[in-house]
Amino acid sequence: MKKEVRRSPEQILLPEGFSFAAVAAGIKASGRPDLALAEACEGATAAAVFTKNRVAAAPVEVGRAVMKTSRGRIRAVLVNSGNANCATGPEGRAACDLVCKGAARLLGFRNEEVFPSSTGIIGVPLPSGKMLAKLPELLAARSASEESARAFANAILTTDTRLKIASARVKIGRRQVTLLGVAKGSGMIHPKMATMLAYIFTDVAASARELQQLLRKASDETFNCISVDGDTSTNDTVLLLASGKSGVNLSPASRAKFAKALHGVCASLAEQIVSDGEGAKHIIHLSIEQARDREEALQVARAISHSPLVKTAWAGSDPNWGRILAAIGNSGVPVDPARVKIFIAGQMVCRNGAFHKFDEQRAHEHLSQPDCEIRVQLQRGRTKLLFLTTDLTAEYVHINADYST
Amino acid sequence: MKKEVRRSPEQILLPEGFSFAAVAAGIKASGRPDLALAEACEGATAAAVFTKNRVAAAPVEVGRAVMKTSRGRIRAVLVNSGNANCATGPEGRAACDLVCKGAARLLGFRNEEVFPSSTGIIGVPLPSGKMLAKLPELLAARSASEESARAFANAILTTDTRLKIASARVKIGRRQVTLLGVAKGSGMIHPKMATMLAYIFTDVAASARELQQLLRKASDETFNCISVDGDTSTNDTVLLLASGKSGVNLSPASRAKFAKALHGVCASLAEQIVSDGEGAKHIIHLSIEQARDREEALQVARAISHSPLVKTAWAGSDPNWGRILAAIGNSGVPVDPARVKIFIAGQMVCRNGAFHKFDEQRAHEHLSQPDCEIRVQLQRGRTKLLFLTTDLTAEYVHINADYST
Repeated sequence: MKKEVRRSPEQILLPEGFSFAAVAAGIKASGRPDLALAEACEGATAAAVFTKNRVAAAPVEVGRAVMKTSRGRIRAVLVNSGNANCATGPEGRAACDLVCKGAARLLGFRNEEVFPSSTGIIGVPLPSGKMLAKLPELLAARSASEESARAFANAILTTDTRLKIASARVKIGRRQVTLLGVAKGSGMIHPKMATMLAYIFTDVAASARELQQLLRKASDETFNCISVDGDTSTNDTVLLLASGKSGVNLSPASRAKFAKALHGVCASLAEQIVSDGEGAKHIIHLSIEQARDREEALQVARAISHSPLVKTAWAGSDPNWGRILAAIGNSGVPVDPARVKIFIAGQMVCRNGAFHKFDEQRAHEHLSQPDCEIRVQLQRGRTKLLFLTTDLTAEYVHINADYST
Repeated sequence: MKKEVRRSPEQILLPEGFSFAAVAAGIKASGRPDLALAEACEGATAAAVFTKNRVAAAPVEVGRAVMKTSRGRIRAVLVNSGNANCATGPEGRAACDLVCKGAARLLGFRNEEVFPSSTGIIGVPLPSGKMLAKLPELLAARSASEESARAFANAILTTDTRLKIASARVKIGRRQVTLLGVAKGSGMIHPKMATMLAYIFTDVAASARELQQLLRKASDETFNCISVDGDTSTNDTVLLLASGKSGVNLSPASRAKFAKALHGVCASLAEQIVSDGEGAKHIIHLSIEQARDREEALQVARAISHSPLVKTAWAGSDPNWGRILAAIGNSGVPVDPARVKIFIAGQMVCRNGAFHKFDEQRAHEHLSQPDCEIRVQLQRGRTKLLFLTTDLTAEYVHINADYST
C-alpha cells in the first residue's frame, strides 16, 4: 500500500462530496490561520476515536455527544488551533456548544451534525466571540479544491513544522474510491499545546457502524502504535467521514480493499507525525516479534519507547542493548530474559538475554541514520507488532522547558 | 526524625558489631576503589528487598538464594562497583558464586552467609579473577572505624557525585540502638551503569522475619517513593543487617521507636539519591493527597513524575499545571478531573480541573529554587503520599546520550 499513498502536499487526491475552508480568527497570537471547516454532502456518515486520557477537553466531550445523538451523521467538522479548550470547566463546554450552534445555524444543519475539535494552549478560555465573528467569512471561503484542502491542513497546525497529508485511490469494481487524510501533532502535548488530530475524508458509501469498525482497526494499527514522548493528549481525535459520492458501497468483496487503503493513509499520517516529533533526530522502527498477543507486544514496545535511558541512548546513536533489555524486564510482561534476542539493523546484539559479539561500529553507523531499525524477539508466541518512536534529544528538552509563562 | 538523622559523611554514628573495608581491584578503569566488604558479628540477622525488574542481575539472583538458604543469617556483604554482572548469562551467575565462595572460605563462613551486590556496566563478564586476587588484602583492611565505613560508602559509587550516608541513634530503655545507612545511585540506570544499592547496618537484636517486615515498610515509604527517570534498575537492592550487639531486643514497646529511626535513615538516603539525580537542577517534593489508597496515590505520583512534559516544564521553572493535570488523567486511576486541585508552594493553580487565577511570578520564582513543593488533591479519599522526584534537563540527555561505545 505504501507506494500507493501520496504524501506530498502538492499531490492531493480529493474525494468527492467535500469542501474545505480556513481563515485567521485571531486565536493564534501570530495571526496565522487558526479556524478550519470541512463540510460533507448530505447523507455523509462518520466514525471517531478519542483520547483515553480522563482529562478530556470540551470539544472531545462534545464530539462524543454529537456522534451519539446524530448516530454518526456528521455534516461539518469545525477545528480551531491556538486554544485546546481544555481544563476550562463548564464554561469551556458552553463556549464549544455556542460556536457549534452558530456554525450549524449558518450552514442550515442540526446542532448535532457539527463535529468540533480544538488544539492549542490548555487552561485558557476559548475566544468564542472571535470565532463566531469569523464564521460567515469561513463559510464563504468553502471550496472543493486541493488548495482549500491544503488550507484546512495548514490551519489545524500548532508547533508542527510541516503539513501532514496523505491520500489514496483504490479501484473497486469499475469505480474508484478516494481517501484524503489530514493530521496535526508533533509531541503528544506541546508547550501548553495539545494534541494529535487526524481527519480522513472518503467518498465511499458505508454505514456509521461499518466505518467505526474500520477506523478502530486502522487506528489501533497505526496511530496507537506511535509514541513521541509517551504522553497522551487531552484532545486526541481521529475522525473518518464518508460522503458516499463515489457510488461504491462497502461490501464483503470491497471491504478489504478499502480497509487496506485506509490503513495506508493512517499509517502515512502516523509516520508523518512521528517524523515531525519534537526535537527528534532519529525515527525508530521498532519491531516486537514472537509475542504471545498484540497487547503484550504493545506493552513491551511502550516500555522501550517510554524509557528516557533508551531514548537518550538513541539520541547518541549508541547501540546500548542493555537499556533496551532492562526496559523489557520492566514492562510488566512476564518475559523470560534468558530467551530475549535483540537486533539492530538485522545484526544480533543480544542473544538469550546476554551479550552477543557484534560489530559495534556498524551498529553505531546504522543508528546515526535518520531511520533506524530495532527488532526484539521474545520467544513467547507468534504475534508481531510494528511501532514507531523517536529519540529523546536535548532539543526536546529545550522546546519543552524553555517556555516562560 | 529528620533532624535526628546525621547525613554528613564527617559525622557517622557506628553501630556495634560491624567492620568495613574497601580496596581497588581494577574493575573500574579509573583505578578507584571498587570492592567493598561489610562484616557482621556472629548471630547477625538480615532482611533484603530487591528490584522488581524481571531482568535481574546475577548478584540479585544469588542474593535472593542466600537469604533463603541462610534464613536471613548473613555475616558478610561483598559489593563491587564498575561491573553490574547483569545480562551475563549462566557464566555471570557462576562468576558471582565463585567470588562469594572465595570470600566465605577466607572468612571461615558458610557460602550462604555471604551476600553479594554488583553495580556498573551491563553485559560485560565480571572480572572474578581480579576480585579473588584482592580478597586477602580486603580482609586485612577490615576495621570497625568511621574511616572504613566511609571507605565502604565510597567504593560502591559509580557515577554518583557524592557519598550517601545517613545514621541515627535512638534510646530504647536504658540502652541505645544505632543505625548506619549507606547507599549509591543517581539515575535508576546510568550510561551502561546500573543501580540503586542501600545497606543499613544496626546493632539492634531482631529476628530476620521482624527485620523483613520493618524493612519492607520503610522501603515502601522511602525508596519506593522516589524516581529520577522512571527506569527500574536490574540490580536494585536494599539490605538491613542487624548485629544484636546493642543488647536491645525488638519488643512491642521498642519496635515503633526503631521503625521511626529506620524510616528516618532510609528517607535520608532516598533524598540523597534524588538530590544527586543525573542532571537534576530541581528536587520536586510531590504530595498526593485525598487518594482512596496508597496504591492509587503512587500511581498518580508516578504518572506525574514519569511525564517528560511535566519534567521538562520543571526544568524551565514553568508553573505549567495543565501538563500535571494531563498526566493525572493519563495515570490509569479513575480520577474525576473536575475535582482535582493543584497547588504550587501552597498557592492554588488549578481548581476543580480548571484554571484558577494565581500569581504566576511567585510560582515561577518558587520553581526556580532547588527544592520545590507541588501538592495534588484528588478528592477521592483520605490517603496522603509523599514522593520525591527531579526535573528532566538537557544535562540529563547529555549525560545519557553522549556516551560512545
